Amino acid sequence: MQTILTRYKPQIDASLIKLLSKHKKSLTEVNYWGEDVIERLIPLATSGKTIRGSLVLFAYELFGEKIHDSVIEVAAIIELLHTSLLIHDDIMDGDKIRRGKQSIYVQYQELCAHKNVPNALHIGKSMGICTGDLGFFIAFSTLSSLSISANMRLSLLHILSRELSFVGVAQMQDIDISARTENEILSLYKYKTARYTFSLPLAVGGILAQQSASTIKQLEILGEHLGILFQIVDDQLNLFGDAKTTGKPVGSDLRERKQTLYYYYARKFLPKNIWEEIETTTAKDLSENEHSRIITLFQTYGIMDEVEKKKRKLSHQTEKDISSLRLSEDKKELFRKLSSLLLARTK
Amino acid sequence: MQTILTRYKPQIDASLIKLLSKHKKSLTEVNYWGEDVIERLIPLATSGKTIRGSLVLFAYELFGEKIHDSVIEVAAIIELLHTSLLIHDDIMDGDKIRRGKQSIYVQYQELCAHKNVPNALHIGKSMGICTGDLGFFIAFSTLSSLSISANMRLSLLHILSRELSFVGVAQMQDIDISARTENEILSLYKYKTARYTFSLPLAVGGILAQQSASTIKQLEILGEHLGILFQIVDDQLNLFGDAKTTGKPVGSDLRERKQTLYYYYARKFLPKNIWEEIETTTAKDLSENEHSRIITLFQTYGIMDEVEKKKRKLSHQTEKDISSLRLSEDKKELFRKLSSLLLARTK
Repeated sequence: MQTILTRYKPQIDASLIKLLSKHKKSLTEVNYWGEDVIERLIPLATSGKTIRGSLVLFAYELFGEKIHDSVIEVAAIIELLHTSLLIHDDIMDGDKIRRGKQSIYVQYQELCAHKNVPNALHIGKSMGICTGDLGFFIAFSTLSSLSISANMRLSLLHILSRELSFVGVAQMQDIDISARTENEILSLYKYKTARYTFSLPLAVGGILAQQSASTIKQLEILGEHLGILFQIVDDQLNLFGDAKTTGKPVGSDLRERKQTLYYYYARKFLPKNIWEEIETTTAKDLSENEHSRIITLFQTYGIMDEVEKKKRKLSHQTEKDISSLRLSEDKKELFRKLSSLLLARTK
Repeated sequence: MQTILTRYKPQIDASLIKLLSKHKKSLTEVNYWGEDVIERLIPLATSGKTIRGSLVLFAYELFGEKIHDSVIEVAAIIELLHTSLLIHDDIMDGDKIRRGKQSIYVQYQELCAHKNVPNALHIGKSMGICTGDLGFFIAFSTLSSLSISANMRLSLLHILSRELSFVGVAQMQDIDISARTENEILSLYKYKTARYTFSLPLAVGGILAQQSASTIKQLEILGEHLGILFQIVDDQLNLFGDAKTTGKPVGSDLRERKQTLYYYYARKFLPKNIWEEIETTTAKDLSENEHSRIITLFQTYGIMDEVEKKKRKLSHQTEKDISSLRLSEDKKELFRKLSSLLLARTK
């Protein structure tokens, strides 16, 4: 995630500020909130890791194209769409902090509380729903008048709305806490993370660089494998990472009964009494001893092995996907470097 | 609202079913909820009054064009976008019934309650947020691949996303219950109702019929005047209509402190003690006597006159707008008939 992607962030952020400011003008003519909401969207949209937008530009450059304003604007549109989804997600998950700031619904809740409006939480959430919706509409409005060919704009509209509709349905599955099969968990990884965070931006970069349908397809498949790997690394960091670095308490996924592969294999391979012990232990923050014991148990009962097997398989597929791309060896090497960086991350 | 508009509904509903069923196929591949959500969207989307979709086809035919599948599909897209907004609105307003059925968030809430899932209301709302989002994405995805020219699809995307962004900001103003100036109330009428329900569909019909930018502009302005009138009639029906016909208790707007023109003029023209009396009376359902007294007070203190003055001015503007359209006299007559029907409605 290092410089190979972060170098695009300043340009994407500048583009986000520009496009949101442009809309501020017309929305302010509607009413007071037009200005208010844009001033909340700008800092939020520009303080993310910008992975998706950066991957658009990474893929675009990979095919030998020189970055220009319109492709940066497409990257900004993807970031705005992502920000809008997060605004809705925070309402669903009750997440009060987003990207180091109060999440949007909490900002509006506080605003109401300051004015002594009753039912501040409900109003905050309602304003948050509107803000997310607005973000979608601003993104699609920006897309409609980009300085790229009409057909390209429509191809982007098509792929963006298709993948977002998949994310919507995947999010519904994520909300539903029923126990899942391994395939259901992998499908969630695929549609909620992998296709959306990797396949989509890579494909968008490819579309902008006028690559063939078969190349776009290759990028999408590579994105799926890379993205599922990425998600597994995420799960690992939650279980075995450094809480100080990740910003989340160790094992919080287990506590929240998040349906990860670890959760699935643990239920499958651990003797019932040990699984119940873990369920009890993880109901609160873990002590160092408890944490070590869980790791030992996961090793003893083959849960680690199972996940590692899955990772190896995916790494192998990713390598095959990269090799089969019609790119020069040094370009492929760049892709491999990106892939290693994403997987070696510590947060 | 009679046959002049209702005659389009069967075709639009059929198109909605077709487009949603088409998406059901790909969404079902994602997971179980893909099928579930489409099966909830179909009955909801097809049981509205279909004013917006019908106005698209009304305007299109007015310019002498013969209706075909793609323009019906555009009408269906507008209805789907509207349905999606309503799904989110119901969460914000806590409306449990929509179009005679349980609103979407209540449907999901009940589903959770049946399974004894804790926090069913919250999960219901979360699923409702996802469903609304999904509706937007399906609508835009459908638009991207319509069988009309690329430039026309992009013009539609532009106007749809622009007007929806205005609605989003207007909804934020509507949520905010602070007292408003007359202009703020009229701005809400303009952006939340008039432009969205009239200007947008009429303009879309005009765009599909390849009318000039100046004609589109004329239609938008006509839509604004007609739509504000429409909203005032809505307010009147709430205050003086027949509860049995409108389906809402008489005076419920007053009870909910809805910022209507009546509310504004009442606060402005009524002596303070009488206004306070009305605030107390309207806190519950009105008796016939109380209702008569409010009507008498509104007449005595010139509130009716003020609203009627506004209506006359808008009717006059609407007539001028229709007259200046570049259409034959019999077409203009059709527009006048539509306008009278919308204003003479009793529900």
